[in-house]
Parts: sequence; C-alpha cells; structure tokens
Amino acid sequence: MSMVQRSTSQQNTDTQETPVMQAAMGDRIAIEDIYPDVEQGRFAAKAIAGQPVTVTAVIFADGHDVLAARVRWRCTQGNAPHTAAEDDWHSETLTLVRPLGNDLWEGTFTPTATGAHEFVIEAWWDLYGTYHYELSRKHTAGISIALELREGHDHVSRALERVAPGSEQASALEALLAQLKGAVDESEQVALLLSRDTLSLMQQCDPQHHLSRSAAMPLEVDRELAGFASWYELFPRSESPEPGRHGTFNDVHARLPMIRDMGFDVLYFPPIHPIGHTHRKGPNNTLTPGPDDPGSPYAIGNEDGGHEAIHPQLGAVEDFRALVAAAREHDLEIALDFAIQCSPDHPWLAEHPGWFAWRPDGTIRYAENPPKKYEDIVNVDFYAEDAIPGLWLALRDVVQGWVDEGVKIFRVDNPHTKPFPFWEWLIADIRGRDPDVIFFAEAFTRPAIMARLGKIGFTMSYTYFTWRNTKPELTEYLTQLNESPLRECYRPNFFVNTPDINPTFLQGSGRPGFLIRAALATMGSGLWGMYSGFELCEAAPVPGKEEYLDSEKYQLKTRDYFAPGNISAEIARLNWIRRQNPALQTHLGIRFYTIDNDRILYFVKSTPDMSNVVLVAISLDPFHEQSGHFELPLWELGLEDHADVHGEDLMTGHRWTWHGKWQSTHLTPQMPFGIWRLRPAQ
Amino acid sequence: MSMVQRSTSQQNTDTQETPVMQAAMGDRIAIEDIYPDVEQGRFAAKAIAGQPVTVTAVIFADGHDVLAARVRWRCTQGNAPHTAAEDDWHSETLTLVRPLGNDLWEGTFTPTATGAHEFVIEAWWDLYGTYHYELSRKHTAGISIALELREGHDHVSRALERVAPGSEQASALEALLAQLKGAVDESEQVALLLSRDTLSLMQQCDPQHHLSRSAAMPLEVDRELAGFASWYELFPRSESPEPGRHGTFNDVHARLPMIRDMGFDVLYFPPIHPIGHTHRKGPNNTLTPGPDDPGSPYAIGNEDGGHEAIHPQLGAVEDFRALVAAAREHDLEIALDFAIQCSPDHPWLAEHPGWFAWRPDGTIRYAENPPKKYEDIVNVDFYAEDAIPGLWLALRDVVQGWVDEGVKIFRVDNPHTKPFPFWEWLIADIRGRDPDVIFFAEAFTRPAIMARLGKIGFTMSYTYFTWRNTKPELTEYLTQLNESPLRECYRPNFFVNTPDINPTFLQGSGRPGFLIRAALATMGSGLWGMYSGFELCEAAPVPGKEEYLDSEKYQLKTRDYFAPGNISAEIARLNWIRRQNPALQTHLGIRFYTIDNDRILYFVKSTPDMSNVVLVAISLDPFHEQSGHFELPLWELGLEDHADVHGEDLMTGHRWTWHGKWQSTHLTPQMPFGIWRLRPAQ
Repeated sequence: MSMVQRSTSQQNTDTQETPVMQAAMGDRIAIEDIYPDVEQGRFAAKAIAGQPVTVTAVIFADGHDVLAARVRWRCTQGNAPHTAAEDDWHSETLTLVRPLGNDLWEGTFTPTATGAHEFVIEAWWDLYGTYHYELSRKHTAGISIALELREGHDHVSRALERVAPGSEQASALEALLAQLKGAVDESEQVALLLSRDTLSLMQQCDPQHHLSRSAAMPLEVDRELAGFASWYELFPRSESPEPGRHGTFNDVHARLPMIRDMGFDVLYFPPIHPIGHTHRKGPNNTLTPGPDDPGSPYAIGNEDGGHEAIHPQLGAVEDFRALVAAAREHDLEIALDFAIQCSPDHPWLAEHPGWFAWRPDGTIRYAENPPKKYEDIVNVDFYAEDAIPGLWLALRDVVQGWVDEGVKIFRVDNPHTKPFPFWEWLIADIRGRDPDVIFFAEAFTRPAIMARLGKIGFTMSYTYFTWRNTKPELTEYLTQLNESPLRECYRPNFFVNTPDINPTFLQGSGRPGFLIRAALATMGSGLWGMYSGFELCEAAPVPGKEEYLDSEKYQLKTRDYFAPGNISAEIARLNWIRRQNPALQTHLGIRFYTIDNDRILYFVKSTPDMSNVVLVAISLDPFHEQSGHFELPLWELGLEDHADVHGEDLMTGHRWTWHGKWQSTHLTPQMPFGIWRLRPAQ
Repeated sequence: MSMVQRSTSQQNTDTQETPVMQAAMGDRIAIEDIYPDVEQGRFAAKAIAGQPVTVTAVIFADGHDVLAARVRWRCTQGNAPHTAAEDDWHSETLTLVRPLGNDLWEGTFTPTATGAHEFVIEAWWDLYGTYHYELSRKHTAGISIALELREGHDHVSRALERVAPGSEQASALEALLAQLKGAVDESEQVALLLSRDTLSLMQQCDPQHHLSRSAAMPLEVDRELAGFASWYELFPRSESPEPGRHGTFNDVHARLPMIRDMGFDVLYFPPIHPIGHTHRKGPNNTLTPGPDDPGSPYAIGNEDGGHEAIHPQLGAVEDFRALVAAAREHDLEIALDFAIQCSPDHPWLAEHPGWFAWRPDGTIRYAENPPKKYEDIVNVDFYAEDAIPGLWLALRDVVQGWVDEGVKIFRVDNPHTKPFPFWEWLIADIRGRDPDVIFFAEAFTRPAIMARLGKIGFTMSYTYFTWRNTKPELTEYLTQLNESPLRECYRPNFFVNTPDINPTFLQGSGRPGFLIRAALATMGSGLWGMYSGFELCEAAPVPGKEEYLDSEKYQLKTRDYFAPGNISAEIARLNWIRRQNPALQTHLGIRFYTIDNDRILYFVKSTPDMSNVVLVAISLDPFHEQSGHFELPLWELGLEDHADVHGEDLMTGHRWTWHGKWQSTHLTPQMPFGIWRLRPAQ
C-alpha cells in the first residue's frame, strides 16, 4: 500500500492512461513515517477518548516551496451515544516543528467517542505561503520587487476566480484588490501583501496544488479505564467469613467498601463457572483430590454447564447480577476471566466432538504450557472439523452473554495459545457492538507474540514487570515500553503478583519488598493490579517455585484483611496519589535521571503542559537504608540550576523549598520510596 | 497492505462469505519485520547481482508447534541475457536463528540477473517436525509413547495418500511403512521415526497447513559497479596539453592509462553540451565574462543544440564514440552529467515555451539553490501547461540517447529540485530496457530527501562525508549508513572533493590531509570518487568559501599531473587494496573498535565468512604524530585474548605476528594511516 495516494482532483484530470501520464499524477509531496502507526496501517494504534492524539509525519517535496499539511480524522464506528459513524471528517492543522528535526510536522486531535477511528495526513503546496516567504525575504534584502508585486496582485485575482461569487471570501478578496490598487506606494502594497490577514485569507482560498494524501491510518479509541485503572483480584469462593465454607457472590459484598477504599477500580474474578470432576486437582496441584476439594476454577465445565454458566456454589445468576450492581455503586467494575479450555466434563465434548482433536485411542491431549501441565483440562481445536464457524461463534456468544450481563472487562487466559485471527475477529466483533469492552491479555511469552496480541486488538496486557527487579532491568524495560512498536500497540498492566506468580523477590523481601513493588507498579504504569493477599505481604512459596503454597487455585482460603503489618493504607495512598496526579496515569513519557546510587531508581513523569510534575525515587533494597544525590529536572521547567522550587511529599503532604538542582534523599526499609510533586516557586 | 496475505489454497476453500469464515481464513502464522524492506514494500530494496541477499523475518504462531519457512524469489524484468521474466520462482529455506533473537528466521539467496526482482516469505506448520520434536522429547524423558508411535504411523500413511502414486516419494514412504511394521520393538520404531531421513522425507511431503505468505517485496538488483567503484572526475576542456587551447575528447585519450593505473573504474565528465551565451559566467563566478571565457558547462544549450548535443569545441559525436570505446579498452566506463537546467539560449525555450513558468514580464526566474545563484540558467517547470508528457518524454529521450551511445552511468545534477514522481518514472523506464544503467544522485540536502531519492530508484548518492572530519562525526555517520532505512536504499559514494566542494579541512591540511581523506573514502565505502586536482593536493580557495579559486567551472585549467608531492601512487595503492580485499568493497558491516586515542579512527571490515579481515587505523591529525593502543578483534575469529595472529601491512606488504589482543600503532603525517590484513596463525 502506498503511504501516499493520488488526490481525487488529480485523478479526475487523468484522461490518457500512458505510463508517463500515470507517473505525473504520482505524489509530488512525500508523506513518510506517520505516527501513530502499527505496521503501516495494518493494525490500529491505540488512543483514549478525551485525550489528545499527537500526530507526526515527515513531509517534504522537491525544491524549496512552502508546504501546508493537516490531519483529518473521523470515528468509523461509534459507541452508544454516537452510534452512527461520523460522515464528516474533522480537521486539524499540522505545523512544521523544526526543533524536532528536519521535515517533521506535528499536530494533535482529540477523539471524543470510543471505537474504531481513522485519520489521514494531507499535504499540499502552500501557494501564497511560498510567495509570501519570497516577497518577505526580498523586501528585507532590499531587492527590487516590482515584478513580485505584480505577481502578488495576480495571486489575489486568481483566488477571486476560485471562490464562490458573493461569498465572504470573495468580498474580502475584492476589498484587498481595491486596497492594492489604491495603495500610494510599493511599501503600502508590500504591507498589504505581507499582512497576517492576507496570508490567512489566501491560505483559506488555496487551490491545494499537488495535494498528497496518506492512506487511512486506523486508530482504536478506548475509554479511560483502558489506560488508567487499578485492578484487584480475588477468588469469590474464598470470601466466606466462616473458614471451611465455600464463599459466594453474596459474601463479596462485604469486601467492596474496603477494596474501593484502597483505591481500586476493577474487581477481577478467576473463572466463576462449573468446575470439572475428571482429573480434578487437589491442594497444591496434586492429582489426588479429596471429595470436598473444590478443584481449579480453570477446569471449566461439568454437568451444570460450561462457560456460560455459574458454579452453583457461588450463587445464582441473580446473585451475580446483584454483585455487579453493588460493585458499580462502589465505583468498581467487575472483570471476568475468559479461559477457553474445558474440563473433560464440559458439555461441549459430547455435544460438539468436532470441536476437538481426538487421538487414535479416542482421547484428547490434555493441556500443556511447558513446563506446566494441566491434567484437568483439554483444549478445543480452532481448526477442527466442525470448529469453523460453530466453535468460534459459540465462544463469541459466551463473551457476548457476559457483556449482556453488564461485564465490560475480560481478562483472557493464555490468548497466545489460541489463533491470532480468532482474537482479531472476536474482539472486533464484540467491540463493534460495544467499544467500551476491554480485553486484557494474560500472555507471558516471547516479545513478538505479546506485541502481536496488542496489535490484533487486546486493550492491555500482562508484562514482564514481575521479573524486573534491578535498576538496569527496570530502566530498560520501562524504556522499551515507551518505544515503538510497544508504545503504539501495547498497554502494560503491572500486576505485582497473581495466583500463578509468587515473585521470588517478594518471597525473601518481607514487608519492605511489598512496598517497593507496590510503588514501582503504581508509579510505573497507568495500569496496575494485585491479587489479594499482596496487601497482607503473603509470600509463602511452594519451595523453589514461584507458586504460592496452599494456592487458592486448588483450595479455599480465609484471610484476616486487617492482620498487623498489612500495607492497605500505603496502597490506598498510592492509588490516591495516582488519581490526583495525571502525570502518573500512564506509563508513557517516563524519564530516568541521575541519582548516585545504583540501588535507587529515580524517574520523572509530567503532563505535556508541565502543570503536573512528579519525581519518584524508589529504593530497590528491602533490607538496608539507601541514600543518594539526585538532580531535579529544573531545565525542564526552564529554570537555572540554582533556582528554587517547591517540593511536596505526596505520601505525607509535607512541603518545602528545594534550593538548586542537586538534592539528596534518604530511603529506609520502612518507607523505601519518595514521591514528590515539583512546582515552580511563585 | 497486509504483510501477510491469505494463501491461495485457503482462499479456494472459502464458500461462505460470512465475517467469521473470512476471519478463519486469516493468517494463523504471523510474518513481521521482513528485511530487506523499504516502507513495507512500497519501494525496492537494493542488491547486487552475484552477491547473496540475506533475508530475515520474525515468524511465529500461537501455541508451541514447529514452523517451517522459506523465501521464494524471482526476476520480474531481466537484463539482456535474461530478457524474459522468470516464470518459475526460486526457493531457499529459512531457518530459525535463535542466537539472533526470538522468532527471527534467516536465509539467503543470490540473484544472478540485474533488474527488478521480488521475493515473498512463506511459513507453514511443520506437521511432522512438530511430531518429531514431541516424540523425541518424550522418548528422552522415558514417558510411555505407545500412542505416539501409532500417531507416527498415521502421519506416514497420510503422507502416502498425498503424494503421487508410483513416485519416488511414494516408494520411500511405502518402504518406511514396511520397516515400521517389521520393526522388532518400540525402540526400532522410534529410531525409524526420529531418523534424519524420515524427517527430511516427511517434510518434503508436508501438506503446508496454515500457509502464510507475505506480500511480494520488491528488490532492485544492480551490477557490481553500482556497489564497488572508484570514480575520477575531469573537465575534458582542461585536458589540452597546450595552455590556453580548449581541450577536446581526443585530448582525454592520453589521460586514460594514468587514470586506470590509479585504479579508477569510472571516468565522469561534467556536462559536455553546448554552453549558453546569455548571462554567461566569467572566471570565479563573475557576471562579466570576456569574449573567450568558456562559461559554465552547467548552462546547457545554445544555437548548437541542447542536452542531446555535444559542445563543438570538445569534438564531434564520432570523437565522443571513439573516447567511449578507448575508455572501455582501459576498463574505464564513462559517466555523463544529467543536468536538467537550460541556458536562456537553449532551443527548448523557443520550441517549447509551455515547458517553462513565465513571469508577468515575459521572463523566467533564474535558478537558485540558496544561497547559490545561477544567473546563467533557468529551470523547466515539470507541471507547466505543456510539460506533461512532452517535457518528461523529451528528458527521457535525452537519457536514452546517451544510453544508446554506450553511456550507462549518469551523475544527476540536483535531483532533489525536480519532482520525485519524475525520477521514479524515468529511472524505471530507462532501467526497464537496460537494468545496467546507473543513476548517481547529486543531492546535498536534508536527510529524508536524500533517502527518498534512493528509495525512488537512484543507484547511489553523494553524501555528507565531505563534512565529517572528527572521530565522533565519522563514527556516527558511517553507523547511520549501516542502519535502516539507509542501508536498504542508499549507497553512499564518498567523493573527497568536487568542482563545487573544496573542503575546509583540505584547505589547511597540506598533503597529509589529502592522504587522510583518501584513506577514509577508499576504506570507508565501496564507492568513492575524486575530482581531478585532488591527487595534486590542490586546495586554493576563494577566500572564506568552499569554492576552488579559479574554478574549472568557469575557466580552462592546465595541470602537471606529475608535479612533485602528488599522491597518485598512494591512491593507486589504496585502489589496489580495495580490489584485493572484498571486505572493503562495501560500506556495510563496519565495526568501530577501541583505540585509546581520539584522533585515530579505528575500524574493522570483513567478509561474512571471515576469510578476509581488514583493520584500518587512520589518524585524523594532518599535523602531528599520533599513537594508540588498539584491540585486535580476536573474538571475532573465535580466538582467545592471548592468541597469535598474522598481520600484513597492505600498503607495504610487510608481514609479522601479533601476540595477543592489545597492540599499538604509531601514525605520522607522512603516512597517517595503517591498513592491515588479519589472518589466523596456522
């Protein structure tokens, strides 16, 4: 696909289809390196409704003439209040931004609806702008400009021929011509021709010679929660206040205020569906469960139903609806797990044997995600005999069914072991009806695959964050997330732990390590999450593994959420700081600056207008005090190195004045991080 | 354009055109980041006939199955001995190259013809490869494999159903089945199923499930001289042995042996056409020429003709032909200048007024390339009233006319001030008939424009080399030329000087500076060039400018090419070294290694097989001796840091043994560089 297409006006003049005539209709103006872009428009870049999209392109032509450019954009598939695609394109001017580099043009636009959008870049010869530049230069140089004045008059006359007779522009052009004729001398003519009003008027009537237009670049616009949200994960079955009793949806109600008070937005449940019996797992992933063992909720389906059903011990569908409503009253949205695998007891095996790959002995291979083995589940085969379209549609209907129940957020289990075309279709299909639906990819795999899932439509993704602990590791990883292609297609959700990941770092760190990881996650990314127990600093492992001992995946668990040593208050404060400081509501725009201690990560985030500037220093050492001298980014505020600025400790509210660029900090295992808002002194 | 298109076989199964059916035909296997590529196939990457093209792509699918991939390629427009496009595609296997990174596949192919080529990447599920991997793993782990053996038998049986009855493959498969049935035990069966022969046989019969095919990627293949050549520029009119007499083509014959002995391949002349009279330039770019002043040859056209004609004082067309033939006998190819501008006396102004942009007073604006002014020339207007297609075809015919005279190399004057679509069409048109024609872009302008000229078809380009003098400048620039997008589309020709550029560095450096710049150019790039006088260390400037005093652009010049202090012998040796050492025949693959002196540039080049490894150390200081310790790249040869290697001074032929990694060198203004071939000790 050519990035630069023929303009419509040029196509219309095409009467002789010889190669040279076709060549002459080619784009005289080159439009290259359009940003944001994912594989030259093959996939949509991501944006957030209400937040400006900065567009850049390298635009140039032969010769020295002045160019003009704009971005045009529209919603091609609106959300509920904007159901119809917008027929009319919006338009914003692009300007040549010399400090950014040669030939780089920039502009912004702000989509208001969610859903599919597109934008194109257009560039053309600025006819009068070119004339204006040359006249101005020659006039300044004192060169004779009699001929140029005649040409200026001709420019205005020809513009008058182009505009609608009697229009406002026609009147303005006629008035200008009259003024030019009545001018007493050259200098009055020059002043008229060089005036800002004349330039603006003439640019409005520009014939847009040599118009180049880029291909339409897709842009997927999400709601705010897609970019800025705090996730809390719990197993409803563990929420019973009575040890030993299976928890229910109704039990979860009591937790909602606490979760909301900690500042979370999303409450995520592992699968809530009926659990299989065959090869059910016992505690700690054993293969010999007792009769009362609940099994892994990821072994989905039994005689009570499959992915569309609710595990009876959790409650009825009415209970689920009541919980969704109650959560909403607490400003919490419920996210469900979409895990496509089936227990061997899933109804689909009998109803749709053609959706599975059977072995010569009449069995189905159980699931593996090496080195992990899942003896209690089997996978569907997306390309099996009867799978297309039956299985694909059935899975879509499962998701749509939960959307119809008011669930707009899905955490998708292991999407990288299902075909990319399936996800690309399913996500577009669901979002085509409701572009507020969010899909969160739980893929821990190779980098190209994780990026691809973002490209084909996943709203956000799990990350390698859990395994990045040292300063070089964290700096490199956060930098990668800020670079192409990830910054356009991949929104990282920094989970500090999951039922599958009991991070090695936390197993030995004690409470200070939990504070460190909470600070890194909340300050590092607009999206972060935790699995319950983190706030209690739970870390007992299956020895030598990243698994939790007595994992909730296989058994019920009762917790005292008010146990001493919990970090709930600190988490609440971190989430409060995130809400108060827009600079922290994204992983983008992070800058790592100098601190003279390799155990302290020091970075700065700010809003584009610098009205919100936050400095973050996090000790990576849970055992010892760490101190360091660091540089305040005074230059970013246009201040001298010796300037005074105001600082505020966002954890405590304490305020002070910093004198000069170099400052020091002292971090302790008790409070291993500092988060400071920086303001210019008045 | 999607990089991954549906395979034909998948398209044929498409009977129901519902979105889900279409989605299910989408590519299960992703093919990303194809190299070489210029803007996702919008433009052709460059290659040289007879030299391997390394192809890479990131290829992956969902799940853990084994993939297979290949590159298919063909010539779509052959040169003279291969006039017909090749109907049959060639094919080379791609292999997963883990050391290069996750999911990166690599292969090579070697085009033999010049002209337009294309390649596609294909990937599919390696059905038996997947089975083979799993069987091997389970067998090694001692897991029961009875079921796997049945599956293996089924794989072979199904392969037999796919191949032609009676074919060689059918016989082999039948034999394999018989061996499997006759096997005495499981371990014999395993050995048969895991054997290299079985794997190879089964991969030959693979059904290529889930075949993905990339878009066709264009590749433009040039002859060797496009990548490796030494250029010599002279004004024929200065070649008269009698001072004051206008030189002729016949005078040039006497210079041919000398130029060839210096090791040059291309002999390039500024324009040889009739020179205008109106506003003719006098010596040193004055506007008041004397009656005998010859004028600038860039003011093309007078009553004797235009771009198709020869300036009578140079000789007749027969003389030109004789010179082309004589040059060829000396292994020299003549390159002409294609400078589109016209003198005001060019016949086209009267014959084709509709090819020019006339001002209100009936004049044409003279040419400018700010800050330079060219009062003696006017430019055509490519989009003027009658310019399309008349002017475009006329210019094409000018080039074709010289091609018909045996000229296959054109240095194009200021291509960046002419429309990109014009060049893209003209170059494709000319090369469509003769893909050995070379176009050399003389554009000194902004980086994006220079790259664009390479993208649209220019074979090679002038560079910023002349203005890169310090070690950081040279390191950065040579590194950029080795990176995308330049490495795919832009072949740099390092001219050390031109009639327009008398480099500031050389104006003050004396002879050592000329040796330094000659070494940098000859060792830095496969393409380099010089304008006559360089070998005599000529550097007298128009004070304060990069112009030569008494420039040949405006007057005749007589030189004594044997004058003392000339560096002709050194240039000859440098060119000889380039011919002997393939590592030096490209700018690609340069590595900068450590030397503890910031005034010495030290780099290494080698052939991919490491059979030719050349170390280059160049002092950038023409005034003082410079010494430094530098590291031999022993690790590249797989040697320990204390190993012995053989060194050879390629300037002198002196040989020695280096002991260990750290060595030292001492460079003087008399011989400011060292060029050493490195060989493993026997």
